[in-house]
Amino acid sequence: MEKILIQDCLILPATHRLGKKEKTQDLLIKGDIAIDGGRLLKVGPEGTIPSDWNPGKIINGKNFLCLPGLINCHTHAAMTLLRSYADDLPLMYWLEKKIWPIEARLTGEDVYWGTLLALIEMIKSGTTTFNDMYFYMDETAQAVEKIGMRACLARGLVGIGNQAEKGLEESRAFIEKWQEGAGGRIKVWLGPHAPYTCPPSYLKKVISLAQEYDVGIHIHVSETKDEIAQIEKKYKKTPVGYLQEIGLFQFPVLAAHCVHLTDEDINLLAESGISIAHNPESNMKLASGIAPVAKLRAAGITVGLGTDGAASNNNLDMFGEMRTAALLHKVVNEDPLVLPASEVILMATRDGARALGLENEVGMLKPGLKADLILINLNQAHLFPRHNLVAHLVYAAQGHDVDTVIIDGKVVMEHRKILTVDEELVRAEVEKRIPRLTSPG
Amino acid sequence: MEKILIQDCLILPATHRLGKKEKTQDLLIKGDIAIDGGRLLKVGPEGTIPSDWNPGKIINGKNFLCLPGLINCHTHAAMTLLRSYADDLPLMYWLEKKIWPIEARLTGEDVYWGTLLALIEMIKSGTTTFNDMYFYMDETAQAVEKIGMRACLARGLVGIGNQAEKGLEESRAFIEKWQEGAGGRIKVWLGPHAPYTCPPSYLKKVISLAQEYDVGIHIHVSETKDEIAQIEKKYKKTPVGYLQEIGLFQFPVLAAHCVHLTDEDINLLAESGISIAHNPESNMKLASGIAPVAKLRAAGITVGLGTDGAASNNNLDMFGEMRTAALLHKVVNEDPLVLPASEVILMATRDGARALGLENEVGMLKPGLKADLILINLNQAHLFPRHNLVAHLVYAAQGHDVDTVIIDGKVVMEHRKILTVDEELVRAEVEKRIPRLTSPG
Repeated sequence: MEKILIQDCLILPATHRLGKKEKTQDLLIKGDIAIDGGRLLKVGPEGTIPSDWNPGKIINGKNFLCLPGLINCHTHAAMTLLRSYADDLPLMYWLEKKIWPIEARLTGEDVYWGTLLALIEMIKSGTTTFNDMYFYMDETAQAVEKIGMRACLARGLVGIGNQAEKGLEESRAFIEKWQEGAGGRIKVWLGPHAPYTCPPSYLKKVISLAQEYDVGIHIHVSETKDEIAQIEKKYKKTPVGYLQEIGLFQFPVLAAHCVHLTDEDINLLAESGISIAHNPESNMKLASGIAPVAKLRAAGITVGLGTDGAASNNNLDMFGEMRTAALLHKVVNEDPLVLPASEVILMATRDGARALGLENEVGMLKPGLKADLILINLNQAHLFPRHNLVAHLVYAAQGHDVDTVIIDGKVVMEHRKILTVDEELVRAEVEKRIPRLTSPG
Repeated sequence: MEKILIQDCLILPATHRLGKKEKTQDLLIKGDIAIDGGRLLKVGPEGTIPSDWNPGKIINGKNFLCLPGLINCHTHAAMTLLRSYADDLPLMYWLEKKIWPIEARLTGEDVYWGTLLALIEMIKSGTTTFNDMYFYMDETAQAVEKIGMRACLARGLVGIGNQAEKGLEESRAFIEKWQEGAGGRIKVWLGPHAPYTCPPSYLKKVISLAQEYDVGIHIHVSETKDEIAQIEKKYKKTPVGYLQEIGLFQFPVLAAHCVHLTDEDINLLAESGISIAHNPESNMKLASGIAPVAKLRAAGITVGLGTDGAASNNNLDMFGEMRTAALLHKVVNEDPLVLPASEVILMATRDGARALGLENEVGMLKPGLKADLILINLNQAHLFPRHNLVAHLVYAAQGHDVDTVIIDGKVVMEHRKILTVDEELVRAEVEKRIPRLTSPG
């Protein structure tokens, strides 16, 4: 793998939380970054890199801000195929009449191209790692391998209906084939869809599979009031209580949404070391509710950010998600000090990595970790003047400000051109599938 | 002025609201646009433009979506100088210790360059008209004239302290000099700051000036709970009740914020024909509260969107503001049908124009109106596939997707290059002023 030197750059290493007496700007250093063998070799001020170290590629970092690649903790990548297909509709009508009929028609090839479109969009807005739950996961993994991203992938498992057993078999085969695949960039998880779609007998099978392969679990939890009512009616418990009792929390669990929680739920999640993916834009758009993020963080729970799928967002831009999270929880708590920029940027990087169990691989710019990083083009009107670049990242920046993206030590986007796949071809492949997917009958 | 033909383009004319049986896509037409003498000559399907009409410039509209320029109903443009200077702080500390000390140091030249930076940012994210309240308005008007934007400008008036009378004098001089200035692109308004900074005797002077010159009034109203408490204590009224009683509502009034309103306030605003600028991101960031937009619209009140200044947002991107408004009111009302994309796009165009009394000039693409329009580059991953471009605009697009901007029939940005000022020079002029403005003591 190539040796890369990024020179004379502003760097946000995300290696420490802001101390009480520090200013946000103290999170930044100015210097150089050396990448070798896919990992960060050195990160520091000028002089850190020995002058006899010979890089194969030198990137002039002037007018760039370098930070860890963003981590999207919850999405369904191939749902780009349904972006803006059905909006401004009631949730169940949206699912039953719009989303599910198209999903029933999807082929593995559709998922491959839809996923590639998502990965292009994610890279172009600074995301280097994502956590996915969908189906045709073999094709999803192929897309991840091809474009060069990092991902946790789970076959979505619905425990009712005729796909239940098939899902488990596919999950097993998927683990066997793809665990640590794409040079270690792919981790396979199990993806039981949600408490209301997975009865106890099914979750027990998921648990035994998780035990057998020692993998993490990605699940939707407490997304809507309707879910709370269903689980209460069936089990006389909250969704969190139900999952805890059945034993799911003995594994690393990434719980997506967690919008409607009791204080007892929050204690249970904290005690069990469960991590949460907060998806503010999806929760707002579907009118699901507002997750108690300030409380969750105060309880010591790791909270990462996610976009959810493009059918309910409708983009995969983590910059938008950071801003929305920062703004939403201020107004909901009636407190402008909640979720300051310095914390939100860590939620999207090191906390996200921790939520996915990747804290020893990515999420910070620290020697020894994998070289997943992004360069922000600071030479833009909306990023001037430069009082506070951390605040700019969260409150003023947009996905398009990302200029260059390096994943696993490899440049996958340079000056906004994706280098690993043909973007135009992917867009055309997606567009040509739409008439078949949406034709009536 | 140049004759311009935009050919073979998707067009969102924003000339009608979506009917009950229409689909969002029915808001779009495919065709050509002819511009002559600064105005729209024709807007329609292929064949609308006579073949013997000879344009000086032809724009190939393929892969673009053309819509009316966005209208930012409330901002303080020169506050770009304070972007991210002070964030994540309590409101009064933020104002007293951070914002006001810098504002006390601002010169007319500072405001000129800070405003130009704001106008570049606005154009680059698709805004063609903005409604401003600040000081050094002569310099603000010069910046507007120079860059070629459309604006309503008001000298901010604080009725307490030694600047009170000076503000009125400056407002009079500003009206005399700039009303219908820059070829009619500038309208001058009066800008009494807020109920809590303008006592009755002062507002009466504002009213008599408004009567003398027949101008509109731009004022902050009911932004914070603190304001409500102050006005209640002083006058035993709500801010809206106070302004109504004093006679302010006999003029066209643009009330910014209107976060905390009683049902009686809403009735008063509706009866008086007052328009409102909704600034969701600023209200969220400062934790001011959430304006009851669904109720306001249901009462028949015209609600436009605004960014507020860059010190409390921290950008001037109306695409972000559209998305935030659309998402926020869904979750607050627990109803995913609130503020559909088809309505939000009208809030940012024709409703904004109406709120500023410009409905006979801009806000729609209709023959006879001024040619203020923007072209969106659709060839981007996050805008594929093309199920519904109106939803894409509101839920998926970002400011950077704007490729070309025409204001008053003149191309001011082409393929993202600002043609009327030197962007790099403006950024440098702003940056070099910062050390003086922020130096301690």
